Amino acid sequence: MRDHFEIRDGDVAGRIGELDVPRAGVTVETPALMPVVNPNIITVSPARLESEFGAQILITNSYIIHKNDDLREEALDVGLHEMLGFDGAIVTDSGSFQLAEYGEISVTTREILQFQHDVGTDIGTPVDIPTPPDVSREQAERELAVTEEALRDAEDVDTGEMLVNAPVQGSTYPDLREEAGRAAYATELDVFPVGAVVPLMNAYRYDDMVDAVAGAKRGLGRDAPVHLFGAGHPMMFALAAAMGCDLFDSAAYALYARDGRYLTVRGTEHLEDLEYLPCSCPICAEHSPEDLRAAAGEEQERLLAEHNLHVSFEELRRVKQAIRTGNLIELVEERARSHPAMLDGYRALLDHADQLEREDPVSKGSFFALSAESARRPEVRRHHGRLDRLEASGEVLLTQGGTPKGDRFDAAWRVVPPFGPFPRALSETYPLTAQVPDRTDRAAYEAAAEGVARLAEANPDTVFVLAHDGWPETALARVPDGVELEPLDGVSPDGTSADDADETP
Amino acid sequence: MRDHFEIRDGDVAGRIGELDVPRAGVTVETPALMPVVNPNIITVSPARLESEFGAQILITNSYIIHKNDDLREEALDVGLHEMLGFDGAIVTDSGSFQLAEYGEISVTTREILQFQHDVGTDIGTPVDIPTPPDVSREQAERELAVTEEALRDAEDVDTGEMLVNAPVQGSTYPDLREEAGRAAYATELDVFPVGAVVPLMNAYRYDDMVDAVAGAKRGLGRDAPVHLFGAGHPMMFALAAAMGCDLFDSAAYALYARDGRYLTVRGTEHLEDLEYLPCSCPICAEHSPEDLRAAAGEEQERLLAEHNLHVSFEELRRVKQAIRTGNLIELVEERARSHPAMLDGYRALLDHADQLEREDPVSKGSFFALSAESARRPEVRRHHGRLDRLEASGEVLLTQGGTPKGDRFDAAWRVVPPFGPFPRALSETYPLTAQVPDRTDRAAYEAAAEGVARLAEANPDTVFVLAHDGWPETALARVPDGVELEPLDGVSPDGTSADDADETP
Repeated sequence: MRDHFEIRDGDVAGRIGELDVPRAGVTVETPALMPVVNPNIITVSPARLESEFGAQILITNSYIIHKNDDLREEALDVGLHEMLGFDGAIVTDSGSFQLAEYGEISVTTREILQFQHDVGTDIGTPVDIPTPPDVSREQAERELAVTEEALRDAEDVDTGEMLVNAPVQGSTYPDLREEAGRAAYATELDVFPVGAVVPLMNAYRYDDMVDAVAGAKRGLGRDAPVHLFGAGHPMMFALAAAMGCDLFDSAAYALYARDGRYLTVRGTEHLEDLEYLPCSCPICAEHSPEDLRAAAGEEQERLLAEHNLHVSFEELRRVKQAIRTGNLIELVEERARSHPAMLDGYRALLDHADQLEREDPVSKGSFFALSAESARRPEVRRHHGRLDRLEASGEVLLTQGGTPKGDRFDAAWRVVPPFGPFPRALSETYPLTAQVPDRTDRAAYEAAAEGVARLAEANPDTVFVLAHDGWPETALARVPDGVELEPLDGVSPDGTSADDADETP
Repeated sequence: MRDHFEIRDGDVAGRIGELDVPRAGVTVETPALMPVVNPNIITVSPARLESEFGAQILITNSYIIHKNDDLREEALDVGLHEMLGFDGAIVTDSGSFQLAEYGEISVTTREILQFQHDVGTDIGTPVDIPTPPDVSREQAERELAVTEEALRDAEDVDTGEMLVNAPVQGSTYPDLREEAGRAAYATELDVFPVGAVVPLMNAYRYDDMVDAVAGAKRGLGRDAPVHLFGAGHPMMFALAAAMGCDLFDSAAYALYARDGRYLTVRGTEHLEDLEYLPCSCPICAEHSPEDLRAAAGEEQERLLAEHNLHVSFEELRRVKQAIRTGNLIELVEERARSHPAMLDGYRALLDHADQLEREDPVSKGSFFALSAESARRPEVRRHHGRLDRLEASGEVLLTQGGTPKGDRFDAAWRVVPPFGPFPRALSETYPLTAQVPDRTDRAAYEAAAEGVARLAEANPDTVFVLAHDGWPETALARVPDGVELEPLDGVSPDGTSADDADETP
């Protein structure tokens, strides 16, 4: 039990949490975005990050400070909070990134954790090995063993009230991520960064990222606060939050600004390509694209960085509101349409629907069916699981609408794609209150047919009649032979009306 | 030829246009949002609409002004521009809405157009009949005849430089909408409001709205500036623009604010339900939900109205940028995931892919395949049309990846779902430069198979071999029998690998 992290609300595997950071004396509400502050180049001052953007937590790099005589002396002398001018929680990285980039660094886990403690870090980090994607399994295992040794070293350091990160590595091997998550969770350490996913994000491999995170999450306890290390693009916050990530860090806001790039929740634009500013943040409300292009180097960089922060914190608030409302998947559905790689990420997420289902609340706002993917949502899986246990006896009509004339049944159940059948008594319960499109897609019909099959299997002695509005062949093929089919009025018996309205060309 | 409207850029059937409004001496860039100003209740002053929100055009109601002695006198005395304090273009409605609501009004088209002219209106409106949805065809035809008479009356009025609206009615009969569009276009009148779609929008019948607008657009010339009358929710701007609507009007910003409602591009929220503000406009950057809830009645109304305007103009800029970039459909794809009814709207839009295809530019940015719906996009239709005319002779390999071992072909074409086959020489041309997901959906495979079939039909003497990465059964069923199938490496011959990765449960 991690008593410094409390989950207040949840949706899918995402959650609103409270991370107590005792050394800073603050409670950080998660999901939280930690702006990355480079102590050598301050684009937006930490004081403004706090007052104008609402940042409760930031991250900086203890190794850069340790390596620079002036910064080190200042940090040891006045402490990081005074040096940066920030009252919130300060996380420090250890130099693992530099290790991965340059092959070696000059400090050990014990040394850097002690240094982090000495400069007043609130959440410190050992020296783990960020194993890149696609390495041999042998390399991934060998490096994971070194990371796990670093975690043990970290446990031995007396860090007082400072919380300590326990990074989860394992490259692109989901089972190693799971094992690493389990090992990290078994330590005394406090916060769990899923590491080395930046190369996946840079290569738009969001599906592989999802698989890596899902692996780590399986190993970690539900009460473990998880940091998706390097996730700074607002486009992916909803997806990452839905998987159960609680902390993000953004260097992107500043790095992209330096390069003339403008973040949106739909991707990244080059300032030079914009004829209109698709945003109404205080920067965009006050400036035209021409203004921004005409701004001098540092001024332009600051303006873009502020826009980038605004759009990032805005998306974070949107994600939190979606968790409160219980429509986080609907937000993920939307973000999945920002890039084909994000769609891959969402489709990969749905591969883990059973895993998500174990955390997803049983009841929430309103289920919106928004795509063929919606038929694979955890709520549909859960309903199908329930159909295995529902009893129906005698002659039961399963109907999408009216009752076929002249027939008499012991019971009449409703059928709604993508869920399938349910007794009318459940009509007002989540997710069966769903809003679904009139133009049903094939995946939804097929999922409904799957529901019919599950119910029929669970009640082998019951006679079922399915009155349908013209299901496509692929759905009817999933209805067991024993179920009698009755087309509803206005529908031809071969189901062509639904085929015609289908999503296929 | 309407020389007061010029199209500068286009995407799908949407366009960036310039509407010259001679009486106001301004050129309005379209798509444009016209805030509705109620002369009795000014929530945000027209001067601020212009200076802070960039409104170039607004709409008010001449009938309300005409009916009120004080307003009438003032308008006749100083003119609308001075009365409202607005230098941009002013459109006035005629009282048709009141006619529809209350059954009768006290003015004729001739009278109200003369009045509009006298008070300085820049774009006036005759008294048409906004026939509601779902009336009998006979009523729709009868009322349309009255509307068309009003248009003829309007032509007879000497309106000087004032432009005049020619509303397009026809209820939910797309063929009547088309006929009405054709009749309106044949007049001397200037701007073309598609009328009486508000009941459809209020009932979330976006698919029926799309069909009505598509009908009107078929009747209207491409150079006709089209106003989607009553479309004020930013959620629908992208869809409406993609259909070729140029003007929107928003009363929603003020009406919703009065009711404590907060607009977003994903729908409408009640202020009382928000724990976070999913926006970073100047209002939301300065206030918390608690602040807004605590604000006094009129102050809260003004703050919400300003937020609602910010989010609306922001979406309008996003739509314009999407038209410039050539990714308007991608934005529609995203907005289609805000509500099942919006998905119905998008699916209905794709029913008109052939109509859209005639206006959609041949080359633009990058095609993103983002859903099963993407396979029905106009570009896919166009590519299939081209396959009917492409010549291929001898033995031709159509391949998604490598070349099956030991085989020799006269040519090797690439195959990319959802497009299907194309010669390598076309690889670098739009839309074949598409970004597609790795996890291909069934609709994309089926569309690719359709492309193979079109090519094979056009070249009956050619031997085709299709090397595929494991297409699902439903796609293989569309490949003509004469085409030889070769599974690519790592794929089982029955195509199960792709079935497993499919969107179905």
